Amino acid sequence: MTLLLKSDAERGEEWTRLLAKKAPKLPFRIWPDIGDPAEVRYLAAWIPPDGLFEQLPNLELLISVGAGVDQLKLADIPKHLPIVRMIEPGLVDSMVEYVTMSVLALHRDLVPYIAAQREQAWKPLRIRPASERRVGVLGLGMLGKACALKLAEFGFGVAGWSRSRHEVAGIATFAGDDELPAFLARSDILICLLPLTDETRGLLGAELFARLPQGAMIVNAGRGGHLDQGALLTALDSGQVAAAVLDVCEPEPLPSGHPLWNHPAVLITPHIASRSRSEASLDAVIENLRRHRAGEPLIGLINRDRGY
Amino acid sequence: MTLLLKSDAERGEEWTRLLAKKAPKLPFRIWPDIGDPAEVRYLAAWIPPDGLFEQLPNLELLISVGAGVDQLKLADIPKHLPIVRMIEPGLVDSMVEYVTMSVLALHRDLVPYIAAQREQAWKPLRIRPASERRVGVLGLGMLGKACALKLAEFGFGVAGWSRSRHEVAGIATFAGDDELPAFLARSDILICLLPLTDETRGLLGAELFARLPQGAMIVNAGRGGHLDQGALLTALDSGQVAAAVLDVCEPEPLPSGHPLWNHPAVLITPHIASRSRSEASLDAVIENLRRHRAGEPLIGLINRDRGY
Repeated sequence: MTLLLKSDAERGEEWTRLLAKKAPKLPFRIWPDIGDPAEVRYLAAWIPPDGLFEQLPNLELLISVGAGVDQLKLADIPKHLPIVRMIEPGLVDSMVEYVTMSVLALHRDLVPYIAAQREQAWKPLRIRPASERRVGVLGLGMLGKACALKLAEFGFGVAGWSRSRHEVAGIATFAGDDELPAFLARSDILICLLPLTDETRGLLGAELFARLPQGAMIVNAGRGGHLDQGALLTALDSGQVAAAVLDVCEPEPLPSGHPLWNHPAVLITPHIASRSRSEASLDAVIENLRRHRAGEPLIGLINRDRGY
Repeated sequence: MTLLLKSDAERGEEWTRLLAKKAPKLPFRIWPDIGDPAEVRYLAAWIPPDGLFEQLPNLELLISVGAGVDQLKLADIPKHLPIVRMIEPGLVDSMVEYVTMSVLALHRDLVPYIAAQREQAWKPLRIRPASERRVGVLGLGMLGKACALKLAEFGFGVAGWSRSRHEVAGIATFAGDDELPAFLARSDILICLLPLTDETRGLLGAELFARLPQGAMIVNAGRGGHLDQGALLTALDSGQVAAAVLDVCEPEPLPSGHPLWNHPAVLITPHIASRSRSEASLDAVIENLRRHRAGEPLIGLINRDRGY
């Protein structure tokens, strides 16, 4: 009944310390020290090492330690193995902080002010009320909903788009390919919080940018693969997109010398928008192990056909 | 019964347009085209021109078009003349946006990420939960209260300090000189929203910085005169203060070549945190003119002894 963790050293130390208190009877190992492979029933990982599944004949559950599962090669994971993703309040709170910060920064012209500071120039711009700024959230999962609701509190006109219809009180919602153009046409600030799948890869590209209002602004807190970085540079230089805040890139780290780094209309953070917190994550893992043993529905179970 | 406005051209045009709808019978003039000086009863201005009061024998009310009155030389204004400052929802909303943006930016390490971007370096830092970050708001007037309440929603531990005791639901409040050290000792992020008076000038100085937790961070959205800029540079270089967001400086514009401009731990915006909105401002002015004529208490009346 061993839980095996494959992660960085910091998370390993924290889980060791916390499990001693919270689940002292649960056998716990940190990869590559896997002990008897036949004992390992649960694997928690961001990216499982190549060949690990073949070594673990009795594995019953794979737990992604992040909010997404796009980092997993689903085709390489045994078909029978259930996969759950991390759902814990810290992931949501940190994403709401990041998205609120980014949208307020774009709304209040922080990107041009950072550029002006580099030139030692004092250039006040006109303040627009939030009620004149329309925000669009791509993706209405747990993260997208929470961000949309927080932004609506500031008085922005907030809408959300998702593949299937979602209802969120106080938020205009759009669904499916048919309604995407209308959603984009009213998004002065567009936030990507989609899962990365074959259907969403490259969605933030030339065609999408052309459907936004001229001078729209972008926050990508999804995955680097959602964004066509070359198309963004073209749209920034034409003025179709006025500014972008990017927490994710492709590849990561973004290589030194990449033109996004020193573009005056781009703000880059190193994939820090949201990270699961050790204690809350571990509580979520322990709860899912309990459910698994009791035969109850797992929290965050992935639908492999849908890819998230 | 003329209302005279002394302001920039943009506000002048907006007031002309809006007054034609809202108060078409109110005689309205824009300085320096004052018409018959004896007709001017109400003066709305940010900084009244030298000598104007002597030209207006029948002036009954001075209206500051901003939230503060520190820009006025109170000693030069006739003693009998009531002074009101601007109180309108746009001022509060824009300040809440700015302070929320700034605190989230400091909390989520945006200042070091901006510096890292200049070096084209991808350097993720550990995310701390908002519950581990204590925010202190200096000043619990209309703006300070609204900012404190919004920040508390994000889970920060928020306290406020003011000269006289204020109660704000959900916020720990401190009052007076005696309680200032205890307030500062628990402020990881300190926000200045005080009125600028003889007592608060230079308050953000070496002595105050030394009372903050080491590595504290500062947001000055009050006035440039609150901050001893030299002391801030010293505190930044010693690490006592880790970062600062400054919307106000002394002088403004901050001169090119000033060491604050290119300090990697300082983010500067050009006094744009809050500005009254034309329509709401004008509604507030019209309401105060009505109250003045009716002999009712004026909104935002200044106490000259207190200075705000």
